[in-house]
Amino acid sequence: MIMDTLFQALFAPRSIAFIGASTNVFKWGFNILHHIIRGGYAGGIYPVNPQGGEWFGRQVYTSLDRIDGPIDLAVIVVKDSLVPDAVRACAARGIPAGIVITAGFSETGASGAALEREIVTLAGEAGMRLVGPNTMGIFSATPSPLQVLMTGMAIAPGQVSIITQSGNLGTSLAYRFVRRSIGLSRLISSGNEADLKVEDYLRLMEHDPQTRVICLYIEGLRDGQRFFETARRIAPDKPIVLLKGGRTASGARAAASHTGAMASDEGVFAAMCRQAGIIMVSTMDEMIDVTGMLLTQPLPKGNRIGIVTMGGGWGVIATDACEAQGLSVPPLEDAIIARLDAILPAYWSRGNPIDLVAPGTVTVITDTVKILMESRSVDAILLMGLGYMTLRARRMMSSEVIPAERIESSAAILIREEEKLIGLLLDLLARKTIPIVPVIDLMGFDAPADINITKALDRQGIMAYPCPEPAVAALAKIAAYQRRGAW
Amino acid sequence: MIMDTLFQALFAPRSIAFIGASTNVFKWGFNILHHIIRGGYAGGIYPVNPQGGEWFGRQVYTSLDRIDGPIDLAVIVVKDSLVPDAVRACAARGIPAGIVITAGFSETGASGAALEREIVTLAGEAGMRLVGPNTMGIFSATPSPLQVLMTGMAIAPGQVSIITQSGNLGTSLAYRFVRRSIGLSRLISSGNEADLKVEDYLRLMEHDPQTRVICLYIEGLRDGQRFFETARRIAPDKPIVLLKGGRTASGARAAASHTGAMASDEGVFAAMCRQAGIIMVSTMDEMIDVTGMLLTQPLPKGNRIGIVTMGGGWGVIATDACEAQGLSVPPLEDAIIARLDAILPAYWSRGNPIDLVAPGTVTVITDTVKILMESRSVDAILLMGLGYMTLRARRMMSSEVIPAERIESSAAILIREEEKLIGLLLDLLARKTIPIVPVIDLMGFDAPADINITKALDRQGIMAYPCPEPAVAALAKIAAYQRRGAW
Repeated sequence: MIMDTLFQALFAPRSIAFIGASTNVFKWGFNILHHIIRGGYAGGIYPVNPQGGEWFGRQVYTSLDRIDGPIDLAVIVVKDSLVPDAVRACAARGIPAGIVITAGFSETGASGAALEREIVTLAGEAGMRLVGPNTMGIFSATPSPLQVLMTGMAIAPGQVSIITQSGNLGTSLAYRFVRRSIGLSRLISSGNEADLKVEDYLRLMEHDPQTRVICLYIEGLRDGQRFFETARRIAPDKPIVLLKGGRTASGARAAASHTGAMASDEGVFAAMCRQAGIIMVSTMDEMIDVTGMLLTQPLPKGNRIGIVTMGGGWGVIATDACEAQGLSVPPLEDAIIARLDAILPAYWSRGNPIDLVAPGTVTVITDTVKILMESRSVDAILLMGLGYMTLRARRMMSSEVIPAERIESSAAILIREEEKLIGLLLDLLARKTIPIVPVIDLMGFDAPADINITKALDRQGIMAYPCPEPAVAALAKIAAYQRRGAW
Repeated sequence: MIMDTLFQALFAPRSIAFIGASTNVFKWGFNILHHIIRGGYAGGIYPVNPQGGEWFGRQVYTSLDRIDGPIDLAVIVVKDSLVPDAVRACAARGIPAGIVITAGFSETGASGAALEREIVTLAGEAGMRLVGPNTMGIFSATPSPLQVLMTGMAIAPGQVSIITQSGNLGTSLAYRFVRRSIGLSRLISSGNEADLKVEDYLRLMEHDPQTRVICLYIEGLRDGQRFFETARRIAPDKPIVLLKGGRTASGARAAASHTGAMASDEGVFAAMCRQAGIIMVSTMDEMIDVTGMLLTQPLPKGNRIGIVTMGGGWGVIATDACEAQGLSVPPLEDAIIARLDAILPAYWSRGNPIDLVAPGTVTVITDTVKILMESRSVDAILLMGLGYMTLRARRMMSSEVIPAERIESSAAILIREEEKLIGLLLDLLARKTIPIVPVIDLMGFDAPADINITKALDRQGIMAYPCPEPAVAALAKIAAYQRRGAW
């Protein structure tokens, strides 16, 4: 089967047979079907169960034979012993692809492995391709939202594709992307990889116009050579961000027990990734941090960071973080210092980090950033200390000791000034000349303050970070990616 | 002055003179006074301003002379050139301690340094002690909440004291503690340390019954020997968690510009910390993670971690994190495996991590934890995958495609089961035999799901972690602390 046909069957099917439909809320036969329908899939959905009847108002077909018209994709959730019959029926019907959610195959031992070989053979004889078994499912954002997932969630359409050898990490990653307002294009939980493997899914992403960044969670590769050849071809145009499970001896033992991954030489694996231009990360959160930065910032042309801070301590820890990540915080050239002299108080530090302390007006902040953008000493800017003005205003307004009317006009000024700051900052960010990475220390704190500015950035697709360390780590990763000549 | 008197003046003053009271909402003379009053301070508060008048209904005194009765603490926010007069007046009045919020001293150059020497001399001659200048302020939870802070916030009373050489990091730390439901006992922003230094504040905490853990942000020490002697005496009983700013060459340069800290040999500094039993962390978030664990878990007797997970991938990355942090994930002894055989499905991995996949009942989870608590191979337990049941229930109930009445009884079962799980888990946690660290992957995600379980844990003072890495890093730190024989 050519990749285009497989791609269409998995991510853009015209219709789906859902084999094992159930109205029992505790079964995947209910939940996954519910998530497909609720997710807004616009193609034909055919619930199948030999008992027939109806699924909350929809007809349930007693067999595939009762369904008219073409079926592009089968979702199989029947119990393990019934999966071969289901695959046989799909193959006979000429369905090009199936997602076997059902567990109880090679991951459970020898008899499960035999069952797994049986379904692969049955499918293979008919040219049918299988996702799974033992998969958490797949998601596709376009052309119609398709949420064949155990865990339903409100995923926004976007440009990130996830391929994962762990269903629960896939769920966790998707949640983290949702939470950080980053949309997804595709998600595949590869399960036992009895037929289709991570290597195949990577190839599917190669020409997907909806995929701009590819996130991978890998425990082991069946065909490392094919994987790295494909990755090397893709990575210069579509960054590949990879989290490897089983990097340590004990982790590899756990991975062997989980996905049957063979222990590999981690040094060799990392070297292969480097050669292929893959961006390796060490945690799920770092994956989100790096991906968000790739999507929302230009690549830095080098390693030199300019730090603008509203407080000295933040500047110090950000500088430590830069050096720890191999980035430099260089002195500023005289011409830039002279221009900053004109707008900063006489006693400013004349160094990098630039500590604005408590700037008198918000334009001091954005003018400083603007001047730094024109420095020849700096490849990216870290901007810290945003969001406190609205926080202060809101806290004032909720005072129990001072009447609101004595405060509200002053509070309104603070809020207006911060809105002005956000507007000016968005203008600078829109230029996309060098990365300007906002660090909003209040993020996640349950005050409306952070929402004002992070929501404003979100609307423009700009990712903010709750502290300097992850921002700096992500900057270091994308600077290294750029150095290899990618994008 | 003996430490007890100073302690009382700063943290338990009977009354406060606030010198530089203002009704201008944009001035610290308004904000800090507002935070003191709003924070609920129950002692006498005397706003002072030569212009007199009133401060939102309170009398403003034109000078200290007009105030009757004793004054234990002066808060000084007048502009820099007026500070010497203010200190002189306080000294004449016999006020034992003053907090100089005002900036514009040694941090701004030679003339500021001269001004700073002047106020130290004036205070010193009268035996008055000074916090600052250029400080963000202090907080004390008891005997009466005292919030002499630039940034007001709803800090819960607790057992953590913060001493910080950066005001903005102090604010950020306090916000993070608030957000993670950890209360504070004291907070001191040491400012320029013209008189009182971090070494003095550490001594103040030594016999403070309200302080159980001490968090320090340090850029440089004036008297390292005294600091480390004090720390070594305190640390076995009250853990000291320290974040060092300026650990790298560029960071040290930034610190020199910020607090005038002399560059120190970081290898020597770290060795001194180790010898003194200080727990060093590398980020603010790690400080919260470690402190929360110290407060809410028993210390592990060793390095061996048992992992209980509801998914294989999480188990793998948690295992990698353990080995990376120098912790082990050992095999389980036969007796424990036999007991687990009795409650887990036939195909379970018989290893550590213990992957429960999708456990049939919630008692499987807590029974597994209970068995592991009795293992001789394990010093602490990491428990992952909580919170998804309520999430699923809530998402079901908000379905647009299925009538609520067809789902609500099933959803109620899920919620009830999770509540049962929480109850059983809290019982196990209450035993405090070994650490049982909950990792709640959904934390911070804006779904009511996480709130259910994290709020329940919060109410019991148990800290949960949003992913395995920070939980494991904190476990490694407290295991090393225990190894030194502390607590």
